[in-house]
Amino acid sequence: MNTDNKRVITISREFGSGGRIIGRRLAEKLNVPYYDKELLDKIAEESGFSREMIAGAEKRAKNSFLYSLASAMGTGEAGPESLSLNERFFLAQFDTIRKLAEEEESCVIVGRCADYILRDLPYATNVFIYAEEADKIKRAVEEYGVPEESVKKLMKDTDKARANYYAYHTGRKWGDPVNYHISIDSGYLEVEDLVDLIIEYSKRQIRRGTTIWDEK
Amino acid sequence: MNTDNKRVITISREFGSGGRIIGRRLAEKLNVPYYDKELLDKIAEESGFSREMIAGAEKRAKNSFLYSLASAMGTGEAGPESLSLNERFFLAQFDTIRKLAEEEESCVIVGRCADYILRDLPYATNVFIYAEEADKIKRAVEEYGVPEESVKKLMKDTDKARANYYAYHTGRKWGDPVNYHISIDSGYLEVEDLVDLIIEYSKRQIRRGTTIWDEK
Repeated sequence: MNTDNKRVITISREFGSGGRIIGRRLAEKLNVPYYDKELLDKIAEESGFSREMIAGAEKRAKNSFLYSLASAMGTGEAGPESLSLNERFFLAQFDTIRKLAEEEESCVIVGRCADYILRDLPYATNVFIYAEEADKIKRAVEEYGVPEESVKKLMKDTDKARANYYAYHTGRKWGDPVNYHISIDSGYLEVEDLVDLIIEYSKRQIRRGTTIWDEK
Repeated sequence: MNTDNKRVITISREFGSGGRIIGRRLAEKLNVPYYDKELLDKIAEESGFSREMIAGAEKRAKNSFLYSLASAMGTGEAGPESLSLNERFFLAQFDTIRKLAEEEESCVIVGRCADYILRDLPYATNVFIYAEEADKIKRAVEEYGVPEESVKKLMKDTDKARANYYAYHTGRKWGDPVNYHISIDSGYLEVEDLVDLIIEYSKRQIRRGTTIWDEK
């Protein structure tokens, strides 16, 4: 497959930053499929965590933190059965994301460590969207309909869960710029301008990395 | 002064990321003055840390971390004389940067906590430039002429000094995306494209913040 014009854009985002809306609008504007947590979870669930899928994901994930950890603990050698349900689900999702990125012409993926999973692909663009606390609260209340009295706690808990999930599976710090090609405060651009900026970035992005995991 | 088209772009950067070159090229392309550490140090030194300058800076800096600290320790009340030479120099530089930002039509400022000092100005765009370690080493050796055997140590020490200086004067974490409007890995764009992206960003940036410190 010629990947010259292919772009897989991953969006990682703080709760209330509008990252999901930005991801959706980005997919619309590029006219490519959009995948978020709910959809990725569903696909991985429907796969039924088949032995083949887990084995395939293990192979693909050989450079991943989880895999190193599992190997160090001896579970890597013992095969898929010895992994916890949580770990097996992550591997099924790892495989789902990797396959989508390889098989789709282009797409937008929000959340689920997609930046990490696709980090070596030359056509991946990893974006982090954040915002000032007051802006995030305003958006969560006005646009997401979160009750004002619970917004701070929900925001804190959600971001903490995202950071923990990311750290557990990747060994990296969620939100650390080094994990992304570009990080943008969503409070200083209109959504359309932010989407255009990401498209401009990804068009000009130098193709680096490797597709050695790609067995096609 | 009408500030509709005014832009003060601050560049914070990791050693070896090419941030300084990007800042210089940005100033050339926008045809505006360029200020870096050396020039800012020189201006502050030439000011002779006059009593007026320090007093003016104290007034302007009333929301700054250093000022709160000095006040908490009682030195804020006691006036400029009670500040250490280091603190007085920072205040002189604070004033230099603030005055440049207010008096120049537009300009580019690299380093010296300028992002923090100008954070409330509606026409300030704060950019952080970073890169992967291997890319930074390559640039430092090939473009800056740093001997290969000392590059890692120099890189580490320089960035540590920058982080410490920033933390001491602002109470914030250097490189934390929250301090900048946009953070970009310089390893995935040509310098010209990166400069264009920053210009595009700053053109579309929503004007927020206040000029209440501006006494004009």
